[in-house]
Amino acid sequence: MEILKTKRLMQQWSRARKKKGKTICFVPTMGYLHQGHISLLEKGKPLCDELVLSIFVNPSQFGPNEDLDAYPMDIDNDLRLAAVAGVTAVFLPQKEDIYPPHFQTRICLDSLPHHLCGMSRPVHFGGVATVVTKLFHIVMPDVAIFGKKDFQQLQIIRQMTWDLDFNIEIMGGEIVREKDGLAMSSRNAYLTADQRKSALSLSRSLHMAGQVIAKGEKNPLVIEKEISCFIQSFPQTRIEYISFCDPATLETVGVIDKQILLALAVQVGKTRLIDNVLIDPPQ
Amino acid sequence: MEILKTKRLMQQWSRARKKKGKTICFVPTMGYLHQGHISLLEKGKPLCDELVLSIFVNPSQFGPNEDLDAYPMDIDNDLRLAAVAGVTAVFLPQKEDIYPPHFQTRICLDSLPHHLCGMSRPVHFGGVATVVTKLFHIVMPDVAIFGKKDFQQLQIIRQMTWDLDFNIEIMGGEIVREKDGLAMSSRNAYLTADQRKSALSLSRSLHMAGQVIAKGEKNPLVIEKEISCFIQSFPQTRIEYISFCDPATLETVGVIDKQILLALAVQVGKTRLIDNVLIDPPQ
Repeated sequence: MEILKTKRLMQQWSRARKKKGKTICFVPTMGYLHQGHISLLEKGKPLCDELVLSIFVNPSQFGPNEDLDAYPMDIDNDLRLAAVAGVTAVFLPQKEDIYPPHFQTRICLDSLPHHLCGMSRPVHFGGVATVVTKLFHIVMPDVAIFGKKDFQQLQIIRQMTWDLDFNIEIMGGEIVREKDGLAMSSRNAYLTADQRKSALSLSRSLHMAGQVIAKGEKNPLVIEKEISCFIQSFPQTRIEYISFCDPATLETVGVIDKQILLALAVQVGKTRLIDNVLIDPPQ
Repeated sequence: MEILKTKRLMQQWSRARKKKGKTICFVPTMGYLHQGHISLLEKGKPLCDELVLSIFVNPSQFGPNEDLDAYPMDIDNDLRLAAVAGVTAVFLPQKEDIYPPHFQTRICLDSLPHHLCGMSRPVHFGGVATVVTKLFHIVMPDVAIFGKKDFQQLQIIRQMTWDLDFNIEIMGGEIVREKDGLAMSSRNAYLTADQRKSALSLSRSLHMAGQVIAKGEKNPLVIEKEISCFIQSFPQTRIEYISFCDPATLETVGVIDKQILLALAVQVGKTRLIDNVLIDPPQ
C-alpha cells in the first residue's frame, strides 16, 4: 500500500496506472475510519484493479461554528484498517496543497444543496462538491463510492457528475449500523454514555415511520408529529429537521404515494447526527 | 476528420485515443471561424497526436440582452477550414445534449470574473467556466488553447484549471489582426462600413498608450483620458471600459511600474468589441 502525501505524487501514481490500462476505484473520506468506511472499501475492492482511499478533513465544507478543529483523527489506525481492506494507495494531502494561496474556484449547485442539511449548513455542500471535483481530477478514478448515510451528499455528487460530464461511475454504499441500530459515524465518538442512548432515537424513528407507512398512513405530517414527540422524549435531543422528501430532488412531499426518503438531523448534546431511510408505500 | 455530434460519441472517441496513448490538443470555439481561430489550430497541430475543435454557441455565457440568437454561424465553412488546418475531430453538440433537463451545476470564481467584461456581463464567465469544464471532461485533452483577445477568459480558465487540478496544459494564442490593426472577431461581421472605421479606434488606442508609456508616462489616469478622447472622436463609439490592470489578478493598477494589461471594451454601433495589450514600462 502506497501513501501519497501530495497531489502531484497522487496524480503521477494514477496517471501511471491509467497508462497501463488499470482501473481505479476511489473512496474519499475524512478519516477516523469505522465499519461504514470499511464497507465502502470492501464494496470497491473487487470492482477495479486499484483501490484508492483519500483521507482529508476538508476545511471548506465546515461552517464557522462547526467542529473542524475538533474533528477526530487517528491516521495510524486508519492506515492499518486501509491495508487490511486491500487499499493499494492512500492519498493523504495537506490543506495547503489542496487550497493554495489565491484559490478562488467553487462548484455551485442551484437546487439540491438548499434542502435538508443545507438549510443549517449553507457552505457545506459547495465545499464538498469542490473538494470532490479536485479529488476526482487528482485520483482519476473509474468508480467512486460514497456512503448512503450522507444521502444528500451522494445525490449532489451524482448530479454534479452528470452535469459536468465526469467519466466516473458514482456508487452508493449501504448504511452500516451498530447492533442497536445507531448509524456508524466518526462523530459518534463525541457522544457521552447518556447521549449514546439518546442517539438511538434516530434509527428507531426511521423504523417506527416504516411501520406506520406500512399500515397505510400517507400523510407525512401525521408521522412527523409522532416521530418528533418520540425523539423529544429522549434527553439532550434537539431536532433540526425531519424531512419526507423525493429521493431524487430532495423536495418535500405532501403525500406518501411513491418511494420517499425520510431523513433526520438531530442534535444530541453538542453532536449533530443524521440518519435516513428509503421507504416504499404499501402495494 | 471525424465529426462527432453527441457528447457520448466524443467521449468514446477520446477515450479510445487515450487508451492507445495518443495525446489530444483541444481548441474550443463558438464557430464562425476566422484567422484568429485558425492560428490557434496551427499552434496546436504540432503539439499532440490529435487536434480537436469544438463548435458550440454556449447559451449559458450570454446574458438576457446579448446577441445569442444573432450570433453568426457558418458550419460548412467552419468544417472546410478545420479540415485544412489538420483538425482530426470536430465536436459539434446540440444544446440539449450539453444542458439536459434538471442541469444545475455551475463553476464560480470569487474574484477574476468581477473585473473588466464581468462588470457588464455578470453571468458570462460563470457560463464560460462551466461549459469549458464540461468540454474538458468530454474531450479529455492534454493541451487546450484559448485566444489572448479574450484575455480575461484565458486567465479564468488558467485559474480554474489550477484550482480544480485539471491535468491539462492551458496555452494562450496571440491576437490576430486585420492589416489595419482590427483584432479578428466573429462579431466584426456585425459592423457596417462606417462602424468598421470606428472599430479601428481600439487597436490604435492600444498603440498610442504603448507610445505614451514608452516615453515615461506612469499615470494610468492621464493615458486613460487621452485614449478616451481619441475613441470618442470616432462616430458611433461608446466606451464601456478602459482598464490598466495587473495581468494576473486583473485588479486596477494605480501606477505603471511593472508589466500591465491595457484592456478595452467599446460599443461600436450595437456591436461590443474588445481588445487588449500587455505593456512593459520603459527600462
